[in-house]
Amino acid sequence: MTPLFPTPYYAVIFTSTHHALDEEYEGLDDFLIDLAEKSGGFLGMDSARSSLGISVSYWQTVEDILRWRQNADHKLAIQKGIDKWYEHYNVRICKVERNYDFMRKVY
Amino acid sequence: MTPLFPTPYYAVIFTSTHHALDEEYEGLDDFLIDLAEKSGGFLGMDSARSSLGISVSYWQTVEDILRWRQNADHKLAIQKGIDKWYEHYNVRICKVERNYDFMRKVY
Repeated sequence: MTPLFPTPYYAVIFTSTHHALDEEYEGLDDFLIDLAEKSGGFLGMDSARSSLGISVSYWQTVEDILRWRQNADHKLAIQKGIDKWYEHYNVRICKVERNYDFMRKVY
Repeated sequence: MTPLFPTPYYAVIFTSTHHALDEEYEGLDDFLIDLAEKSGGFLGMDSARSSLGISVSYWQTVEDILRWRQNADHKLAIQKGIDKWYEHYNVRICKVERNYDFMRKVY
């Protein structure tokens, strides 16, 4: 789970419905995380999937997000996702204004 | 999947690790959604769960989020979650600055 950071920073919330996923999709997912890690300003990514998929990536600035989106390999990967798996997705670019956590105490 | 809205609006990203969940937890989850729906300014909620749980709720304003958090029933529900299931959670309050979608075309 991605830790908290001093605010403000940015989050990209990606929610999707999709057809049956396969091993090739897992490979794409790993590839995209790898790509993000090599892109400047990347802070982390959290993903979970039920009937809906949710991936949230965290970034230092909006410019870091735009640069990542413009990356040619990223564009190709998203296009492949559209061709093969995604039915519908929403992308939200957000400024994280406050954050806090709860950690279970171990006695 | 919660639709897009005109920006700006707000998102609360709740990520959690937890012990084994049960039917009682599902009941709590439904209760919290029901509570949000009765609270002013609530726009929708998306949830997915793998080893990590992610729930994102959407709100018109920050004031709507703070009112929801102050609701006594909500506080009790969160406390129950802490007592029984959650190991660690992060909460991020975010301003959604841009949003866009992709919808598969049906020919």
